Amino acid sequence: MRESQLAEAVIRGEVRAAARLMRDIDDEISSAREELKALFPYTGRAHIVGITGSPGTGKSTLVDHIIQSYRQRKRTVGVVAVDPTSPFTGGAILGDRVRMQRHSTDEGVFIRSLATRGHLGGLSRSTHDIVDVLDAMGKDVVLVETVGVGQDEVEIVRLAHTNVVVLIPGMGDEIQAIKAGILEVGDIFVVNKADREGADKTVRELEIMLEMNNYGPDDWRPVVLKTEAIHHKGVEELVDQIERHREFLGKRLWEEKQRARVHGKFMETLRDLLYEEAIKRLRENGLWEKLMRSLGERSLDPYSAAEEAMAHVLRPD
Amino acid sequence: MRESQLAEAVIRGEVRAAARLMRDIDDEISSAREELKALFPYTGRAHIVGITGSPGTGKSTLVDHIIQSYRQRKRTVGVVAVDPTSPFTGGAILGDRVRMQRHSTDEGVFIRSLATRGHLGGLSRSTHDIVDVLDAMGKDVVLVETVGVGQDEVEIVRLAHTNVVVLIPGMGDEIQAIKAGILEVGDIFVVNKADREGADKTVRELEIMLEMNNYGPDDWRPVVLKTEAIHHKGVEELVDQIERHREFLGKRLWEEKQRARVHGKFMETLRDLLYEEAIKRLRENGLWEKLMRSLGERSLDPYSAAEEAMAHVLRPD
Repeated sequence: MRESQLAEAVIRGEVRAAARLMRDIDDEISSAREELKALFPYTGRAHIVGITGSPGTGKSTLVDHIIQSYRQRKRTVGVVAVDPTSPFTGGAILGDRVRMQRHSTDEGVFIRSLATRGHLGGLSRSTHDIVDVLDAMGKDVVLVETVGVGQDEVEIVRLAHTNVVVLIPGMGDEIQAIKAGILEVGDIFVVNKADREGADKTVRELEIMLEMNNYGPDDWRPVVLKTEAIHHKGVEELVDQIERHREFLGKRLWEEKQRARVHGKFMETLRDLLYEEAIKRLRENGLWEKLMRSLGERSLDPYSAAEEAMAHVLRPD
Repeated sequence: MRESQLAEAVIRGEVRAAARLMRDIDDEISSAREELKALFPYTGRAHIVGITGSPGTGKSTLVDHIIQSYRQRKRTVGVVAVDPTSPFTGGAILGDRVRMQRHSTDEGVFIRSLATRGHLGGLSRSTHDIVDVLDAMGKDVVLVETVGVGQDEVEIVRLAHTNVVVLIPGMGDEIQAIKAGILEVGDIFVVNKADREGADKTVRELEIMLEMNNYGPDDWRPVVLKTEAIHHKGVEELVDQIERHREFLGKRLWEEKQRARVHGKFMETLRDLLYEEAIKRLRENGLWEKLMRSLGERSLDPYSAAEEAMAHVLRPD
């Protein structure tokens, strides 16, 4: 296939082309980078909304109902569901299928689950790239669903325009444990499963914590909402608030977030490319094997080995 | 201070020198690398034990009692408590203080909490380095306590010699959600808070899942134990099993894990050094600023920018 032909099909909104490119991104196929270059001028338009919550908070059901609400508002929706990779979960694929079925006949919805294994930061990188594909496809809103623990997820939500944090009643202890940081990223807090005992108490606890922050007159003041996602209760109010936050961002804050995304992507890509190219060259000329042997025998420490390798691939200063 | 003087004090087991070096590692002070080089020949002796469990499983109390058991067995203990960084937790420091008090008069115990912020992979890197410091100090056992979600934590436990996974009764759903991966890393499974209803059921569910694995005759067969950490019940049996796993590893598997640790450290260090040096050079000659401006105006895509930057710092191929 001609270079960027895939990208052109994605821009036309072709679902199969988008799915193919996402697979290439996941598999870290290098041609994906050329396609992403071609997509770049078509990105930067989607409203990226992070939906963060622990397992068991009903986050996926909530996402499902948010999709429904946006569709009724005639907006197209992309979803990236990020399950922490690996040893610890295997749930991504099943969840995908269940939700795919519900929206499978709706061309205005595209859902993709991610459970990337692989090196550090891989999850964050893939997520950003897949958000860009959905954005370039023309999706109005891109929901990024994460469990919100771990540095990768933190990176992910940091780059969303709007962040929704999902809790359930009786998570008082958990709120205490996470309070220092959760306040920094949440724009909207949702107490889901609000028919359970203790919902109002959890709402109050959240509000008290939020009141302790010092907001300036121009700052967004986080809101706390109750939902029963399974009965669609409170979901319209939630989507209203997400929309209100988007309006609050305006042109200036929106563009600031876009710039941060692009700079972050540049730095991530540079880091990856340098490392990949260095490994390739070291392997080609045999230094890699020599270093690995010395390290295995513990006759060389890993820091000195890295310095030697670096001197070999960089231009003399 | 003369280079590696700090390292020499660490090797002599001086607590203040170790604390100082750990701070330098956390703050990513570049002289820390020189100290780690000097420590390298003194590492590779400690038994590294991962203790992984969700918040609320009583993991920290369990760690506390494991320490007590090892101390009665005349073994010295280091602990690295990894709280996922960031926006989402702020619990590290408090937990540290509480536990510090209990063992503060015991010179055979050194506890360090980590809640590193910063770029991707930072948590994993710092943890490895701090494990090395505790190892070089002469600690017999190093416990690494993590919540076990996120790629960083996965990296961390992958490099432990022995992995203990902590659950509580009634986590049936959670077991289902995590089953695909958790079996791969757990050497010992602990159902803590075993006085609660459903403990035996959770034990059986775990055993059934483990039985579905195909173990070869030479493979370690994971064990499932019940504990009530708060009453020290089952803790001695747990430490017995950790010791049994260490014996099982023998010389061959132990050395394999050590080699994987050293190779991993080399690759992480190379990746960091290349990136840091590249940024430094790009800033010095003004290309960085030019690229940032073009990216901000969206007149250049981040992938092409990264390629241009790379061509600038690498030797011509």
